Amino acid sequence: MVDAVRRKVLVLCSGGVDSTTLLAKAVEEYGAQNVVALSISYGQKHLREIEAARAVAGHYGVEQRFLDLAAIFADSQCSLLAHSDEAIPQGAYAEQQAQADGSAVSTYVPFRNGLFLSSAASMALSLGCSVVYYGAHHDDWAGSAYPDCSPEFVDAMGSAIALGTGGDLRLEAPFVNASKGDIVREGLALGVPYELTWSCYEGGERPCGACATCLDRAAAFAANGADDPLLDR
Amino acid sequence: MVDAVRRKVLVLCSGGVDSTTLLAKAVEEYGAQNVVALSISYGQKHLREIEAARAVAGHYGVEQRFLDLAAIFADSQCSLLAHSDEAIPQGAYAEQQAQADGSAVSTYVPFRNGLFLSSAASMALSLGCSVVYYGAHHDDWAGSAYPDCSPEFVDAMGSAIALGTGGDLRLEAPFVNASKGDIVREGLALGVPYELTWSCYEGGERPCGACATCLDRAAAFAANGADDPLLDR
Repeated sequence: MVDAVRRKVLVLCSGGVDSTTLLAKAVEEYGAQNVVALSISYGQKHLREIEAARAVAGHYGVEQRFLDLAAIFADSQCSLLAHSDEAIPQGAYAEQQAQADGSAVSTYVPFRNGLFLSSAASMALSLGCSVVYYGAHHDDWAGSAYPDCSPEFVDAMGSAIALGTGGDLRLEAPFVNASKGDIVREGLALGVPYELTWSCYEGGERPCGACATCLDRAAAFAANGADDPLLDR
Repeated sequence: MVDAVRRKVLVLCSGGVDSTTLLAKAVEEYGAQNVVALSISYGQKHLREIEAARAVAGHYGVEQRFLDLAAIFADSQCSLLAHSDEAIPQGAYAEQQAQADGSAVSTYVPFRNGLFLSSAASMALSLGCSVVYYGAHHDDWAGSAYPDCSPEFVDAMGSAIALGTGGDLRLEAPFVNASKGDIVREGLALGVPYELTWSCYEGGERPCGACATCLDRAAAFAANGADDPLLDR
């Protein structure tokens, strides 16, 4: 049971597997009327993720908020961004890790998760929430090249949020030590409508099956002996 | 001298005394061509601060960036916001500290500084900066009611920024242990054009002289036996 202080939670929702499962968990723990789903555009090449987040929040009947923070990344050359000519790389995250010059991988959006968590904190406090739920998980940081997914980063942001709000808000990342396979297992038990979600970096009609996030997603369903409903449509 | 790694710095500029002095310091240390001034609207009741920031950056001839993050605070009731009907309180910060119910003072913008620092980090990295300069100072947190100005908060955000960018960016707050009087002393020595700055919470033709930030500013000039040029115009 949720204690009396946790009256309302804001969940950062990307429309993907992890945050959708987290939303389901929040609804179970807090009740749909006490959950706010926040989705953020950052100028990505397609809006499939945002459309998925909208569909998922609609499914659960929770309050929704949207933000467009694309202007902040106007000067970034990240390959996920609409204004970038760079192609999104194919292959697993692990293969993208080795950068000869030590620079960030092309799909790293500069400090995006720090920005998203700070925006979530500002909005959560404005809406009377006492908790921000964040779907970072083990596979995001182990074997990946994203520094803004590590447990140390989440801890530091959690401290900043607690200190910067005078203790009125706290950050929780319930999946930070779970694998994506663990998350899908929990989600299947919760009846998560994975057919409404979107993970692929590309914005096609169907997932490309070749980008890092498609490979991760497929492996997570396979680990549970389950089919990804998105591939059966 | 600035070491070779510190090639470019982004300064968060509000148009006030502290960040303008910090901008002057950055220009001296890095050279104007290696300084970016970032100013952020958050939906405040007037744009005097942003106009001042523009004038100051123009004076120093540095690159300028502007962001409008007002949408994030659409649900906040903070008295500084244009959509809030609440009056901005008068009197010193110290007097505003005692809230019978333990809630934040009406001029606290929810996690604003965390959001500003995260936005600055995302933009700084996009622009090839290796440092973010932040003008938080001692008087902001000692005797004030703003939790997002404390050294502990700045440290936590600094850790989050270092960790979340893989060490490519660091946060520096050179004034965090200085008083506003100390800052004005340094600024007077640097020839800062304080006549271009704006501090007052109100957006009048002249500073109101009664809000907390006006009182702080007046005391900082008085501590240096100097006149505030803004009051002489």
